[in-house]
Amino acid sequence: MTAFESLKESYGEISDLESALSLLAWDQATYMPRGGATSRGFVMGTLASLRHEKFLSETLDKITSEIRADQLDREQKYFFDEFQWNRARARKLPDDFVRDVARAHADSFNAWLEAKKTSNFKIYEPHLTKVVALSRRASDYYGFEDHPLDAHIVSHERDLSVVRLKPMLTELREGTVALLKRIMASPNQPDMKFLETKWDTQKQWDFGVQVIRDFGYDIDNGRQDKTEHPFMTEISPGDVRVTTRLDENDLFLAMSGTMHEAGHAMYQQGMPKSDARSPLRDSPGSGMHESQSRLWEVSIGQSMPFWNHYFPKLQAMFPKQLAEVTPGMMYAAINKVWPTFIRTEADEVTYNLHIALRFELEQQLLGGTLAVKDLPDAWNAMTTELFGITPSSDREGCLQDVHWSEGSLGYFPSYSLGNIYAAMLMEKIEIDIPALWEQVEVGNFKELLAWLREHVHRFGKRLPTRELMIAATGKAPTVRPLLERHERKYSKLYAL
Amino acid sequence: MTAFESLKESYGEISDLESALSLLAWDQATYMPRGGATSRGFVMGTLASLRHEKFLSETLDKITSEIRADQLDREQKYFFDEFQWNRARARKLPDDFVRDVARAHADSFNAWLEAKKTSNFKIYEPHLTKVVALSRRASDYYGFEDHPLDAHIVSHERDLSVVRLKPMLTELREGTVALLKRIMASPNQPDMKFLETKWDTQKQWDFGVQVIRDFGYDIDNGRQDKTEHPFMTEISPGDVRVTTRLDENDLFLAMSGTMHEAGHAMYQQGMPKSDARSPLRDSPGSGMHESQSRLWEVSIGQSMPFWNHYFPKLQAMFPKQLAEVTPGMMYAAINKVWPTFIRTEADEVTYNLHIALRFELEQQLLGGTLAVKDLPDAWNAMTTELFGITPSSDREGCLQDVHWSEGSLGYFPSYSLGNIYAAMLMEKIEIDIPALWEQVEVGNFKELLAWLREHVHRFGKRLPTRELMIAATGKAPTVRPLLERHERKYSKLYAL
Repeated sequence: MTAFESLKESYGEISDLESALSLLAWDQATYMPRGGATSRGFVMGTLASLRHEKFLSETLDKITSEIRADQLDREQKYFFDEFQWNRARARKLPDDFVRDVARAHADSFNAWLEAKKTSNFKIYEPHLTKVVALSRRASDYYGFEDHPLDAHIVSHERDLSVVRLKPMLTELREGTVALLKRIMASPNQPDMKFLETKWDTQKQWDFGVQVIRDFGYDIDNGRQDKTEHPFMTEISPGDVRVTTRLDENDLFLAMSGTMHEAGHAMYQQGMPKSDARSPLRDSPGSGMHESQSRLWEVSIGQSMPFWNHYFPKLQAMFPKQLAEVTPGMMYAAINKVWPTFIRTEADEVTYNLHIALRFELEQQLLGGTLAVKDLPDAWNAMTTELFGITPSSDREGCLQDVHWSEGSLGYFPSYSLGNIYAAMLMEKIEIDIPALWEQVEVGNFKELLAWLREHVHRFGKRLPTRELMIAATGKAPTVRPLLERHERKYSKLYAL
Repeated sequence: MTAFESLKESYGEISDLESALSLLAWDQATYMPRGGATSRGFVMGTLASLRHEKFLSETLDKITSEIRADQLDREQKYFFDEFQWNRARARKLPDDFVRDVARAHADSFNAWLEAKKTSNFKIYEPHLTKVVALSRRASDYYGFEDHPLDAHIVSHERDLSVVRLKPMLTELREGTVALLKRIMASPNQPDMKFLETKWDTQKQWDFGVQVIRDFGYDIDNGRQDKTEHPFMTEISPGDVRVTTRLDENDLFLAMSGTMHEAGHAMYQQGMPKSDARSPLRDSPGSGMHESQSRLWEVSIGQSMPFWNHYFPKLQAMFPKQLAEVTPGMMYAAINKVWPTFIRTEADEVTYNLHIALRFELEQQLLGGTLAVKDLPDAWNAMTTELFGITPSSDREGCLQDVHWSEGSLGYFPSYSLGNIYAAMLMEKIEIDIPALWEQVEVGNFKELLAWLREHVHRFGKRLPTRELMIAATGKAPTVRPLLERHERKYSKLYAL
């Protein structure tokens, strides 16, 4: 075995531990009985700590010291560089700390589930306090230039930081606030009355599955289950799972979530199978991953051509509720722009304000200027400021998102980045596939998926986001296409 | 931390790895998509190998060398002795071998699933060949006195071997063959016609769940799912799961399987919670574990008082199919003794002949006198010899059981031991709880479960089977109570 082959084999074992951790987390969110909660933290802590130990083992010291980077071929170099970056980062954390963090996250996730169910922040507060404190310690271990959040952002977006994100997100926020004002003042508001009824959840499930199968999600190499907070997880290349949430009072919730997670899953399924057990089997950053989920969920799933094709199918499933409704009414309703409390249910315009709120608050939490106990008030105050409405419970406030419970700080900006990248990609796709919308109109997504596979998916983590975007669209990341898209779409919808 | 506390902490991590392995196996049998199969073998192999490494680590050498056995209290001594026994055994296997075995078992399990589905032994043959070869190597690593199977039997039944099992199993086989002959000659055969119809599987599921909840299985600290081969698995003390198999053509299959696995699960749930992450959290042997599953499934679930209580409930679920049926007819039908192909569907008398067949064949497989390619013929020939009937496909022959696919050789005798122990326990329980059958007749199992918890469950692995049985029943293991029970029950049922 060459040194590089030994490296691949050793990394394979690290990747196996990650696979087991993914399954433990999937099970925790889907089928684990409540009685399993305490032990799950121990088990995940032990596996995370073993993964960390393996990463920093003397065996790997020896193997890597034998590798001559200048003698590697291009593919091997991608692998080796990615491995070394991750290893250098892992080296900064003490082993005990890694185990404690994994335990704390598992426990905190369980507390969050419980707290959200009963809208009781008190259950969650001590856990989130611990998670924030551990995250702050992690920032110190990792090191950072300006803001402790930078140390976390870099794990999602390698070249970004608070300072670098701010200009883009501020441009997006200001453009959004201006557009929102005009939309709210428009007399042409869509009819939302027909939505106020019950929607059989089994039918909602069936509709969603049909749509994502049509998109190209290979559900035979994955599966869908129900969870409180939908997510996608890759257990292995042939086992890429999604989850969704169903609510009989909400027609759009499961639909949007299902398309969103399938977008993530198709990204994973589009990566080379030969990248199994390799660190290259991922997106270069979460923003890129979110671009795929948001593209399918919003750019496609909330387009008029999509509804021209799918509305009759939905109507056949709900003949009574949708008897008087047209595809145009459906399109207007699913695109209704208005201030709401829940991020995952938000329209695509206000969506980015939800991100602005979270990004601001996580800076304060980690920066130490906001105590966890004051989070509910701060959340509600900022909701009032940005949206002009105030949550009546923490369930529709600071308890709605799973991310912080799992220690995922600095992740939220990735959603707005995803929207930005998705708009850029769509701009190019509409040029490269002139018949795109005619195809969508007949439920044919083959050319679109092939384009994404060719220009995005197949690279895995080989190119950094910026390079990937330039290669795919000819442009460096810019907010303009997204703002233009909003302007175009909503000027028409609201006759601005 | 004292040396013993360090030992507990270290063992906790080994136990965490086992917990993850249990979940990986559970998922493989329940929800894993087929595409996940290849990777699952790698993941389980890596975790098994890490578990093995941890078990034999220098850290544990150091810790154990600091422990003075004579200074431990009784509870600590149980822990330490059990730990040392397992460690001595683990030490005999090379690390690579452990990983290869776990991978081979995971792959072989997948192949078995596929082979059984299509009744195609060829798919399974190379995998089983590999498993048998690895098992034979394991026998050499472990060492054995008489027969290579002894090295495997000891992992299920610490003090037993082929030579020690033979007298008991031969006595049981001979008694059974004699009784079977008389039963088959009886003119009083139960009516089985009413069973030849469809039974809604959801109702079967609901009935089973109601019964095992009544028994005392705490399903809120566990769950039930569907699998091709039912099993029980403890992920953690608060997460003890069971699975069942449903067939709309078979009213008894799910019912029996559900009660059987719940019997195992209640055993686990009856062990002290404080034994979490301890090697004492298990039965002293598989026979003891099977005594609990078979006691609930057969001694209780196939008794007349049980059916006096549950038949009206079942009848209410299947009013058409059971309109003309009485509790007595149900009791006679579920206890019908006849030669059949499938072990898990067999009546309690012929059941032990199924075990005799498997025990004989696994001796030959591991002893090298039977090649895997000849297994189907050997299986069919012995079925003809013992039962006078011949399987028409391998699905109802040598592909029916999961055990060998997972490398579980030498396990089958445990089922007959379970029957033997269950009969002994029931003999004593009928004395200790004079009102037992009146209680069963009203669906009250509280005193029975309390007796089992007091005399069996709470000990975990603290007492060897023989001692446990003597403490519980006043007698050393003996076949007589089981044969007497059969004689009594079936003389009456068949008017012999």
